[in-house]
Amino acid sequence: MDSTFVVGIDVGGQTSKIGVVDARGTVLAQTVIRTDTYDKVEPFVAELAEAVNKLIKESGTEGKVRGIGVGAPNGNYYTGTIENAPNLKWAHERVEFSKLLSKAMGGLPVALTNDANAAAVGEMTYGAARGMKNFIMITLGTGVGSGIVINGEVVYGHDGFAGELGHVAAVRNNGRTCGCGKTGCLETYASATGVARTAREWLELSDEPSVLRSLDTIASKDVYEAAKEGDKLALKIFEFTGKILGRSFADFIAFSSPEAIVLFGGLARAKEFLTEHIENAMNENVLPLWRGKVKIVYSQLKESDAAILGASALAWEL
Amino acid sequence: MDSTFVVGIDVGGQTSKIGVVDARGTVLAQTVIRTDTYDKVEPFVAELAEAVNKLIKESGTEGKVRGIGVGAPNGNYYTGTIENAPNLKWAHERVEFSKLLSKAMGGLPVALTNDANAAAVGEMTYGAARGMKNFIMITLGTGVGSGIVINGEVVYGHDGFAGELGHVAAVRNNGRTCGCGKTGCLETYASATGVARTAREWLELSDEPSVLRSLDTIASKDVYEAAKEGDKLALKIFEFTGKILGRSFADFIAFSSPEAIVLFGGLARAKEFLTEHIENAMNENVLPLWRGKVKIVYSQLKESDAAILGASALAWEL
Repeated sequence: MDSTFVVGIDVGGQTSKIGVVDARGTVLAQTVIRTDTYDKVEPFVAELAEAVNKLIKESGTEGKVRGIGVGAPNGNYYTGTIENAPNLKWAHERVEFSKLLSKAMGGLPVALTNDANAAAVGEMTYGAARGMKNFIMITLGTGVGSGIVINGEVVYGHDGFAGELGHVAAVRNNGRTCGCGKTGCLETYASATGVARTAREWLELSDEPSVLRSLDTIASKDVYEAAKEGDKLALKIFEFTGKILGRSFADFIAFSSPEAIVLFGGLARAKEFLTEHIENAMNENVLPLWRGKVKIVYSQLKESDAAILGASALAWEL
Repeated sequence: MDSTFVVGIDVGGQTSKIGVVDARGTVLAQTVIRTDTYDKVEPFVAELAEAVNKLIKESGTEGKVRGIGVGAPNGNYYTGTIENAPNLKWAHERVEFSKLLSKAMGGLPVALTNDANAAAVGEMTYGAARGMKNFIMITLGTGVGSGIVINGEVVYGHDGFAGELGHVAAVRNNGRTCGCGKTGCLETYASATGVARTAREWLELSDEPSVLRSLDTIASKDVYEAAKEGDKLALKIFEFTGKILGRSFADFIAFSSPEAIVLFGGLARAKEFLTEHIENAMNENVLPLWRGKVKIVYSQLKESDAAILGASALAWEL
């Protein structure tokens, strides 16, 4: 067992989680700081570095930390920059995040990528994709993110931004408008937000009875609770969501022929209502040579640790 | 300059082309043998080996050939096998092609992949993709094939069959039936055959005047000739074909963020009528961050040499 450690940082819109992690994927210590109280990147990085140093001290790993891995929205692996991140006030313009943090940490190396790529590395290092060389990580949260692994390496592409599978065309004609400016994107249907949109749309368009009718606002969690009670409309919403996911997955398979597709995120908790429909649609829409051969698996990382673990896993590759 | 040579073999349904190639991509000598007169793989490989040996002798490269690269339908890079190839009578069952050929050639190493992957390696080694680390090769022939290059390496996936982009969903509802058993596949619209299908469909569904109406049978070449004469229907057929291609390319970009998409094959000759429509549809359907940034380029290999060069390029990696 290697006796060195890494630090994982998950930068989110409101808070950033920090953890010290060992080679087995145990989070020895963790803490949280605010992200949204800063307008400029420099004071944020200064506080981040202070929190990291404190955590290293507390966990007794001083002098044994090999590097820092960071998962952040629009994080670019090649350049170490964050840019055009709508939810980070201090990163509307391009910021040299890795460089600034490394400097503030006395030269400790820093690796940066987006959250979904970090999740893929985390799953490959500690989770459901251990031993896999070719898989696709799909994060089903507020949006749909993806991290693609080919030959044991995350695909970053020509510019560092590869793997935006939430924005492939799930519906070509008359599709839902997406935050990105396009229509019909996968994430407008198959994210937590997408499930809630489907529910609101279907409640308005039909008279079908459903426990969801009694609610003022509907979140994907409500649809999940309703499905657990056997609500037929809620079950049909997950069937539809699974079908949309499965037929997009069929196209992803034609691209990189993965061993598995790994699902993670809030919506993945509804696996009991999704898996069968995903698999059916995927196998109906894929070339015969792959029918029944690509596994749908779910993240094996503890949800509270997953973001930190994913980011930390990047640092082992430094 | 390296003074070694390689052999490239392009196995087609009717004939197989063989060439001896130098490191600059010059085909020093080439020949052709029949593929379709054999029911079993062994006698075919025996004749192939004889033809290769004769060619090596004629080109004065005896003792200087480093290896053999083979492009063949359903060729599997990992296993060196060909299987389920509908157009090769001797490869309906799985055949150990690389092993057999290497043995017949006295142990010379053999690398095998499918035609589109070979084309991608050829373009990267000698053609339009020289210096590129991330691009997607699309072959527009009777069908649509693809070879995906990420970080300078062809993507073979978990099983060796990655890169079947001719069979992603171009049209989800009421799409054309495809030879693969699915409907709406990209190649039913955007291949030479697809263009001819579009022409026949549109001629039947409208009364629009067109020089194509006077023909008994229509091939994509006829549509191209008509477009060159300014025939409006023919021009609209290429506009439609370009649009179908462009919007699928937008999804491919979301996957691997390539520097360029390289087009090759019979239909690519119609570039004057396709490029603008491909680029427009691609840029309309891609995330803003890639708008106007991904190049559409055309193969730079001489068409008569391209298949041999592609296959031969594989052998440099042996």
